[in-house]
Amino acid sequence: MKFGYFDDSRKEYVITTPTTPLPWINYLGCNEFFSLISNTGGGYSFYKDAKLLRLTRYRYNNVPADGNGKYFYIKDNDTIWNPGWQPTKTTLDNYECRHGIGYSRFLSSKNEVTASVLTFVPLNDNCEVSTLTLTNNSSAPKNLSLFSYVEWCLWNADDDMKNFQRNLNIGEVEIIGSAIYHKTEYRERRNHYAVYAVNTCIDGFDTNRDDFLGPYRGADSPLAVENGSCTGSIASGWSPIASHQITMDLAPGETKSFIFVLGYLENPNDEKWETAGVINKKPAEEMLSRYRTDGDVEKAFTSLRNYWDALLTKYTVKSSNDKVDRMVNIWNQYQCMVTFNLSRSASYYESGIGRGMGFRDSCQDLLGFVHLIPDRARERIIDIASTQFQDGSAYHQYQPLTKKGNSDIGSGFNDDPLWLIAGTSAYVRETGDTSILTESVPFDNDISVAAPLMEHLKRSLDYIITHKGPHHLPLIGRADWNDCLNLNCFSEHPGESFQTFGPSEGAVAESIFIAGMFVKYGEEYAQLCDLMGMPTEAGRARQEVESMKEAILTHGWDGDWFLRAYDAYGQKVGSAECEEGQIFIEPQGFCVLAGVGVAEGIAKKALNSVKRRLDTDYGVMILQPAYTRYHLELGEITSYPPGYKENAGIFCHNNPWVSIAETVLGRGDRAFEIYQKTCPAYVEEISEIHRTEPYVYAQMIAGRDAKFHGEAKNSWLTGTAAWTFINISQYILGLYPTHQGLSIDPCVPKDFGDFELTRQFREGNYTIKVQNPDNVEKGVKQIYVDGVPISGTIIPYIKGKSFYHVVVVMG
Amino acid sequence: MKFGYFDDSRKEYVITTPTTPLPWINYLGCNEFFSLISNTGGGYSFYKDAKLLRLTRYRYNNVPADGNGKYFYIKDNDTIWNPGWQPTKTTLDNYECRHGIGYSRFLSSKNEVTASVLTFVPLNDNCEVSTLTLTNNSSAPKNLSLFSYVEWCLWNADDDMKNFQRNLNIGEVEIIGSAIYHKTEYRERRNHYAVYAVNTCIDGFDTNRDDFLGPYRGADSPLAVENGSCTGSIASGWSPIASHQITMDLAPGETKSFIFVLGYLENPNDEKWETAGVINKKPAEEMLSRYRTDGDVEKAFTSLRNYWDALLTKYTVKSSNDKVDRMVNIWNQYQCMVTFNLSRSASYYESGIGRGMGFRDSCQDLLGFVHLIPDRARERIIDIASTQFQDGSAYHQYQPLTKKGNSDIGSGFNDDPLWLIAGTSAYVRETGDTSILTESVPFDNDISVAAPLMEHLKRSLDYIITHKGPHHLPLIGRADWNDCLNLNCFSEHPGESFQTFGPSEGAVAESIFIAGMFVKYGEEYAQLCDLMGMPTEAGRARQEVESMKEAILTHGWDGDWFLRAYDAYGQKVGSAECEEGQIFIEPQGFCVLAGVGVAEGIAKKALNSVKRRLDTDYGVMILQPAYTRYHLELGEITSYPPGYKENAGIFCHNNPWVSIAETVLGRGDRAFEIYQKTCPAYVEEISEIHRTEPYVYAQMIAGRDAKFHGEAKNSWLTGTAAWTFINISQYILGLYPTHQGLSIDPCVPKDFGDFELTRQFREGNYTIKVQNPDNVEKGVKQIYVDGVPISGTIIPYIKGKSFYHVVVVMG
Repeated sequence: MKFGYFDDSRKEYVITTPTTPLPWINYLGCNEFFSLISNTGGGYSFYKDAKLLRLTRYRYNNVPADGNGKYFYIKDNDTIWNPGWQPTKTTLDNYECRHGIGYSRFLSSKNEVTASVLTFVPLNDNCEVSTLTLTNNSSAPKNLSLFSYVEWCLWNADDDMKNFQRNLNIGEVEIIGSAIYHKTEYRERRNHYAVYAVNTCIDGFDTNRDDFLGPYRGADSPLAVENGSCTGSIASGWSPIASHQITMDLAPGETKSFIFVLGYLENPNDEKWETAGVINKKPAEEMLSRYRTDGDVEKAFTSLRNYWDALLTKYTVKSSNDKVDRMVNIWNQYQCMVTFNLSRSASYYESGIGRGMGFRDSCQDLLGFVHLIPDRARERIIDIASTQFQDGSAYHQYQPLTKKGNSDIGSGFNDDPLWLIAGTSAYVRETGDTSILTESVPFDNDISVAAPLMEHLKRSLDYIITHKGPHHLPLIGRADWNDCLNLNCFSEHPGESFQTFGPSEGAVAESIFIAGMFVKYGEEYAQLCDLMGMPTEAGRARQEVESMKEAILTHGWDGDWFLRAYDAYGQKVGSAECEEGQIFIEPQGFCVLAGVGVAEGIAKKALNSVKRRLDTDYGVMILQPAYTRYHLELGEITSYPPGYKENAGIFCHNNPWVSIAETVLGRGDRAFEIYQKTCPAYVEEISEIHRTEPYVYAQMIAGRDAKFHGEAKNSWLTGTAAWTFINISQYILGLYPTHQGLSIDPCVPKDFGDFELTRQFREGNYTIKVQNPDNVEKGVKQIYVDGVPISGTIIPYIKGKSFYHVVVVMG
Repeated sequence: MKFGYFDDSRKEYVITTPTTPLPWINYLGCNEFFSLISNTGGGYSFYKDAKLLRLTRYRYNNVPADGNGKYFYIKDNDTIWNPGWQPTKTTLDNYECRHGIGYSRFLSSKNEVTASVLTFVPLNDNCEVSTLTLTNNSSAPKNLSLFSYVEWCLWNADDDMKNFQRNLNIGEVEIIGSAIYHKTEYRERRNHYAVYAVNTCIDGFDTNRDDFLGPYRGADSPLAVENGSCTGSIASGWSPIASHQITMDLAPGETKSFIFVLGYLENPNDEKWETAGVINKKPAEEMLSRYRTDGDVEKAFTSLRNYWDALLTKYTVKSSNDKVDRMVNIWNQYQCMVTFNLSRSASYYESGIGRGMGFRDSCQDLLGFVHLIPDRARERIIDIASTQFQDGSAYHQYQPLTKKGNSDIGSGFNDDPLWLIAGTSAYVRETGDTSILTESVPFDNDISVAAPLMEHLKRSLDYIITHKGPHHLPLIGRADWNDCLNLNCFSEHPGESFQTFGPSEGAVAESIFIAGMFVKYGEEYAQLCDLMGMPTEAGRARQEVESMKEAILTHGWDGDWFLRAYDAYGQKVGSAECEEGQIFIEPQGFCVLAGVGVAEGIAKKALNSVKRRLDTDYGVMILQPAYTRYHLELGEITSYPPGYKENAGIFCHNNPWVSIAETVLGRGDRAFEIYQKTCPAYVEEISEIHRTEPYVYAQMIAGRDAKFHGEAKNSWLTGTAAWTFINISQYILGLYPTHQGLSIDPCVPKDFGDFELTRQFREGNYTIKVQNPDNVEKGVKQIYVDGVPISGTIIPYIKGKSFYHVVVVMG
């Protein structure tokens, strides 16, 4: 069942009912100011850090679902309704929510009044702009009252929901004309405040929540709206809000529009005050002056659209498969950008207060957006590398505001160092910019011990080389990519974090997954060495890679698939010998995509085992059989009920690894089958089962053992976005950036047909027509560049050349 | 305006409308299982630790207010209502909520159906029992459906509201007959589960919240109730709940009753499972078998009432002032017991997740309940002393489950050590049990460095003696009793905790408040030395007390009142020289009650200044003038808007200090005037202004500078309970326990009239008639014990004597 449809020409998903299975959301903002907005108007805004600088209050896991947002109430006689349906839930005559790229639109009507709302965060401005347009479609004049409503968060979203003894005493506001200023704690250590304003005179306002809502009332039935007038309340302590009241007459056919701006402002410390106790509103007034007229908004909105349109032309595909086209051209790349902006901080499942930027997460996300915003990817790499320790290990997370490592969680995740190589390699391959490798980068943010980035990568590699276990395989540390496989944890008491409990290192537990990563990124490191003229170091790295391959083949192969790990007792994990958890997906995908066992023929065996043991209609499960009980020696993975999350869920992030692995074997049908199963556009038709947004990936889909098999969870902020984009763009469609130039080597289903690609790669614009006359799954017979045949699959990069017209003949 | 009335004969407060200004709550439980319950059925339950073992989910600061509780829905044709009004808020024909001592009752009716609910936590059992009785008062048969509803919290209340990525995947339940078991995380590290059951066959159940409520619905309109039938949902991930459905016919005049039990159970690790994946329900079945019949419940309820009745006869008064009588005999002592049980962990303002047991808090609370439960007070003293450091300083908080010091907040609150003397002195004076002083008590929970409690007290004293500043006054450390006076903090950035930022010690900033405490508790320490036959040590202590007095008189007197402190620059705080914050309440109260300046005549001057500068209709403010801006050198105190909390609010905790100080001067009229101003029974009439419960104290009442002057906040868990009880019982009514026996020396208003007291003191039962023929404020002309006149005011303690009949003639 569908709850809407894709409007590809506008790059929008159009939701046609407010009662989607879960709130379906969108992200607004590309720089420092962000908003989450759901299809019923729920959500919240923050500046830079979703924990520390939260502008508006949101209530996770509330009932009714999706509690709090930025609401508009329209009172038309006794009928009170919202363009987004919530919170009054008044039945609408028409409803439509269009989530676009960086904006959302609502178009609703009730009793012959139409409301249109456009909400977006302008480029390079710290505010959210909403234009609300009301039209009287009836033949009689209408007298309408419009009420806005946002509830302020007291900045620190964590403290905001705990420390009531203090927080119910400190709320402060100022009101000047139509602008409501939220200035809680500005009196003391904050130099920032928020404003919510409208570009017209108002007929009333409220700033104290209980006065606006009335006693024991919710946002579904505000007393002020029922009464038709705000109370003029001035918040003092308790819960400050902002509500404007605008009363208007609308003649038949008449339209009026209102521009609401929710902004974040800072003042220098010596310019905080206008007069004693009165905040300096100059920056706010300047901001508001930028959005006075519909023309102003139109201009800002056009800039935003142009920005996105430009980004989304960097990689395009035109095939006979519109689902692939819309994912590649619009939604998958959009989601990659959102993961760049947000890391894992704030979604409808990530509360925005528990995590900083992940080292591993950010490196992987980067793989998905480096072609879109290479400059910012460069900056991100430097930020990440700056948190690395001198021994090559890394803080597992760092704080977005300070960019310093998070010592609460510390280090010990032994895959982390290798992801830095992955991200850097991707950046250099994409841009050809080797200057990043010689850039001086601190360790642990200590500038006095800075070293060139290339040295950071060397230490990453050496960390793995010097941390091997009894089988010459990499020690796992706290965990590898699978955070829940905690082989050195042994936690017996609730409340102990599986991520930080126990020793950060153990001398026995080893990861075959990290071994596979080492093979892949060790070679990428060697290629960087080649590029930098360091043949000895390249040779050393390749030798280590060979040793690692050897170790995998000797100690990491279980007979029909790759082992997952050895635990702290040296026992096998992910082996046919195990009672539960006999086969894991990660080493099958990563070892094969790294090329391990391909020559030996066991790669195929491993992938066939994956299909036989882990495949479902909704994707490939992470392991089988599910763990039915807690295994002290395995940790969090066994704490989940069977079928959920890391315990035999379909963990979408690693499905593309298997799909990529299939392309390495040239099996395009199977690679594409795996791609399709978790691909949002393909699961749109079963939204009643899948439940999360049909335009973005979710982290997890419940596995076969779960009660709700097929149900997705944790949409939006997942490394799945980057890896599926790598899979479809670099392996299936086959446009892989190398140091020497763009390589083209598609691996598609037999019936995929011809297709065209465009790609901006460094300063070149590539148009690529791929012909597949023999309907092969893989294989390039001939490539023509500007009509001239070349040998091999790499289009030689020519510095300064702007246009490449390429024809690829598969066969 | 009143929203109910006191029913003193039943020791109940009767609330007659559900729409009280704020939720008015009660506490159930005396041992390890606790519930908070509001007058609309809101609240939650936990076992031992409100953060780590939370049974049911509550939503603080939600809209509508008071979100979530244990609800009963009654469906009578199309009318759906709740006995507590929320969450449906269906208008009731009758409504009454009676908060009693350890139980709450609801009596409501709608459409000729009466519902009566009695809820309590039985003594020595880990459950909450609710008996719901339905009566058909109409002349026609009724077909009714009854639905219960509780929403499970996933145990850790902090994690429960943040970690959705995990938490929405782990919910698990089992259903056996009418018992719904919540077993989330039992599969792994927990050995405990919860049950919600009813003593009858059920017609349906739900355990998955979204199935019961329906999409985008709240507890105000559950779809299952609207449809008249539960869906039989089995929670798997998402949000587990428990709802029973019972359909019944009620003949005219017929009554049916149902017993609901919400329980917490543990199993030994080796008895966790009945069969694989099926929890061992034996302990739950045993618990449920204890509450099968109305008779069972009646018996348990009677035990509970008897327990409380016995406790509340330990100190009683009978005067011509019924407000004093009800506070002393019922509510003030009840609140003291609640502070014993809860410390500052869980109220409607303390979210139960931010704080452990306070060292200072617990010691002060103890002063208010030591006469009620001396054995548990003894245990508490040992627990507290066990967290002390070897140098005499103390962790500021400790964890209720482990009883270990909380190193997150650490030490450095320099008043803390002295409160241990205060609590121990009170215990020994109350009980005569000097064995506690020789008990071996660890430092920092390290048994290898244990020492007798007396040695702990010595180190407390010595810590102050060895930590003095330039004026020979005690260094303040992080803060003294006023947590918000942070003289060594200098925090410039939001998010820094004022309690932990900056150095824990400074060599300059001094506290006159701690100096006053030292005079008071130094003397109490000396008395303990006397008792233990340590005259040299007693002499040393008294000499130090004299030096401290001298320092206060020399450097702590500002001319018209006592200074508050010297800041880190050696500048005066709380002086006429200051621009803001010229006079503080704390040193005036504590220095005078310690006797400082009484002989010199400046005590009176100080208290007169308090009256002139700090008094309001609603109590005595903490300081004046309010700080209008942030003072970096003073810390959090200046972060509050003027009139709130420590910045010129009426901080109720310290009002009794001033009242006690007035009794030291013999000014009974003024002492009682101060007592009255914040006394709940006296402010009942202005509940629309005061807003919190009129039967218990709040921490703070907004001061004169606040927008809402007179509005109380943070009711229930406040040291105010203990100190007001000490004030009224020991100083105004004048029954002060000394080591030699009970002292009687009342200080009352001239028109207070004669009164009678009963007191259990050690093994003696005292009945005391106080006559005041001359209407004096203070002064005892003659005391007769069993008809025999004695000299002085102390009734000599005679070991083994059971009854003392005492007549006191004032004059």
